[in-house]
Order: sequence, then C-alpha cells, then structure tokens
Amino acid sequence: MKPGIQAIAFDAYGTLFDLYSVTAVCERKFPGRGVELSRLWRTKQLEYTWLRSLSGQYEDFWMVTRSALAFACRSLNLNLACPPQAREELMESYLHIDIFSDVQPTLAKLSRFRLAILSNGSPRMLSTAVESAGLNGVFTDVISVDEVKIYKTSPRAYGLVLQRLGIPNSAVAFASSNFWDIAGAKSFGFWTCWVNRGKLPEEELGVMPDVTVPTLDGLVNALGEPAASSD
Amino acid sequence: MKPGIQAIAFDAYGTLFDLYSVTAVCERKFPGRGVELSRLWRTKQLEYTWLRSLSGQYEDFWMVTRSALAFACRSLNLNLACPPQAREELMESYLHIDIFSDVQPTLAKLSRFRLAILSNGSPRMLSTAVESAGLNGVFTDVISVDEVKIYKTSPRAYGLVLQRLGIPNSAVAFASSNFWDIAGAKSFGFWTCWVNRGKLPEEELGVMPDVTVPTLDGLVNALGEPAASSD
Repeated sequence: MKPGIQAIAFDAYGTLFDLYSVTAVCERKFPGRGVELSRLWRTKQLEYTWLRSLSGQYEDFWMVTRSALAFACRSLNLNLACPPQAREELMESYLHIDIFSDVQPTLAKLSRFRLAILSNGSPRMLSTAVESAGLNGVFTDVISVDEVKIYKTSPRAYGLVLQRLGIPNSAVAFASSNFWDIAGAKSFGFWTCWVNRGKLPEEELGVMPDVTVPTLDGLVNALGEPAASSD
Repeated sequence: MKPGIQAIAFDAYGTLFDLYSVTAVCERKFPGRGVELSRLWRTKQLEYTWLRSLSGQYEDFWMVTRSALAFACRSLNLNLACPPQAREELMESYLHIDIFSDVQPTLAKLSRFRLAILSNGSPRMLSTAVESAGLNGVFTDVISVDEVKIYKTSPRAYGLVLQRLGIPNSAVAFASSNFWDIAGAKSFGFWTCWVNRGKLPEEELGVMPDVTVPTLDGLVNALGEPAASSD
C-alpha cells in the first residue's frame, strides 16, 4: 500500500457528483441542445474561475456558475429568460446533483482514512449537494475554496486541506476526475489519483498523476490493503 | 477624444497577428482537420497559461504552445511525429505569422502615441514575429510577460507596461481581440478597447470594455482627433 497516507481529499464536481445531472436538466429545458449547452457552460465555469483568480477578482462559485450559464446561453442563442424560471431550474441542478454509483461503496471501503472534500463549490452549494446525495456524516471535512477566495489550482486552495486537517501534504491522497486539478494538487505535493471517468488523454502540464484509475473504486486498490493489525 | 492617454499597448496574437496563419499551416499538415486542430491548440494554449500561472508553475510561451500542440494532436488522434518535421513546421507558424491588413494603416494614424506590445509571447517569439511582419521600429516597447514569469490576466503582467513606459495606468489605452484579456486589463485600470474581430458575444467577467470596435482601425475614432495645436 501507499505508506503514510492519513486522509483522502476528493474533488466534488465530476468526481463524486455526476455532471450528467446538469446535462439532463439542460436537455429538458432546451431539447436537442442539452449536451452542447452543458459542455460550454462547464468550460466557461472553469475558465472564469481561473481568470478571476489570476486577476484577483474572486467571486463565489454560485455567481461564477451563473455568469457562465448566461454566457453559454447567449453564445448559443438560447433564451434563458423564457420560461422565466429556466435560469433558476438550471442553477438548481447543481444543488441536487446525483452521485456516481461507485461513490458510496468506495467511501465505505476507505473508512479507515479521514475523508474530506476540497471543492471550488461555495459552502451552500456543497452542503446542499452533500445532503441531497445522502452523504451527510461521511466526510469529516467539506472544504470550500471560498475560505481563501481563490480557486484551484492556487496552492492556497490545496493548502486548506492541511490547515483544516492539521497534517502534512505527504499524508494526503487527492482524487479528482479533472486532470488540471490533479496537476495542481501534484504540484502542491499531494499523492494524486486521476479518476479518468471520461477516458480522456493526459494533459501536458508537466506533471503526471501518481495513479490513474477508470472509476473511483480503483482508488481502493491503488491505496492498497490496510496494514496488518499488530494484535 | 479620450483625454490623458499617452500610450497604447496592444495584445499580439489575434489582435495584431492573424492566427489564421496558424490554421493554414495546420490544414496543410493535416488536410481537413486544420480548423479543429488550430482551435483546440489555441484553447489549450490559453488554458495552460492560466493554470500554470495560478499554480505558480510558469513555463515560457514557446514551451506552453508546444505542450498545447502535443495535447491537441493526441486528443484528435493526429500523429505529430509523422512526418518528423511536422511539429517544428507547426510551431514555426507562430514565428512567421501574418498581420491583419488593418494593422499598418492604423498604427500610422496613431503615431502621436507611444505604441507598445504587451504579450504572453516569449521574447524570441515576439521579436521574430515583429521582424517577419515588417513592424520593426513601429513599437517603442515590445514587452513579454516572461519578465515577470506569470501570464495575463495577472496584474503583474499588465504592470509591466507601467514599469517600462514610466506612466500611470490612467495614461494607457489597451487594445485586444481577446475579451478575457480586456477584462484583465480593465480590472488593472487601463482604458480598454475590445477589437471584436470574431463578432463574439461579450463574456460575463464582471467588467466591460470602454469601447468595442469590429476591427483595429476603429481604435482611431475611439481615441478621437489629436487635440488642436496651440500654435
């Protein structure tokens, strides 16, 4: 097993929570355009977190997500104001978002570790989604970058895990389905597991994940069996 | 006219230099796939500048551009190693890149201002492209963010203009075809002109350009006539 790991920090969106929930709501609101809309919405949501962080213009993830939705709809000529409640229903898809089917069984097998979430999501988005998914009590810490007002991949965002858990970065395993997030976490000094749910090619950011697994349950084997008890 | 402006700083790629040159080389190397390749290459190039800046892992623009090309080809199943010189020929398209037809006449009409370039490009990329385009001597300052080892939209990148020109930010007009760059420059305190060459919708980054023009020559009217001479 990977020695010295005391805690696992999970990315939220795309890693634990299935963004397909969001796509489905997009498709219901704009039949035939759901995939296109949700893809551009997500792309812009991430771009805006990076740009705002870099220029020192932080705004919380709810607002960034709202702005990204507005741009995506404008860009695709979709009328977000009709019906009037369309915007709110699309936004709420982030609050009641499905978890992937491998999340509950995987977390159960990893209960010997401290389990945390480190996410760009605002505190309200995270607490609502965790509760809605029936994950209350599973994580010792649900950490939002909102505490430091800067998004991943800033070292200050990853540093929150150390502050909150009181352990060194060498004791943290970090799991994310987003390669860019893995690159940030690896540069920070975490042991990293890329959950390559989308079967995507590796990005060229100068760092590689410690392990790559196709679904979250691959993390159980990657971390190995618990050390044999001495009694 | 807009009062108090002493200098104009121009973004390079997409604003002065026409990225269609790059697309054309992509199309020659990979017939039928040029548009797709150049689009993904550009998207990743920008993403990597933001991600590397945010995580403190700066690498110069030549290397970032090379990495982005490698990812784009892998992602699109294009073999960059065949023919063996393909990679170098694609990269060199950035060194000998056409200028838009409105650049020379526009700059001639704005010669009463100090004219500068502020670009993510590495010093070698910029000097080669400026020379290749016949723009030697037109700009008093060709400034690369490489001096501060962080990309736009960091305030440290825009701050280079003030350091090099020795003027306050209220005396600088900044022109770019990239909305995200305009947002960074506006947040920094420059007067901004978005050259919306692509007829794109406005992004939702919480700031708006001071003026938007369809092509670079629109900047001449936006800055107004020279103040009447007092003699």
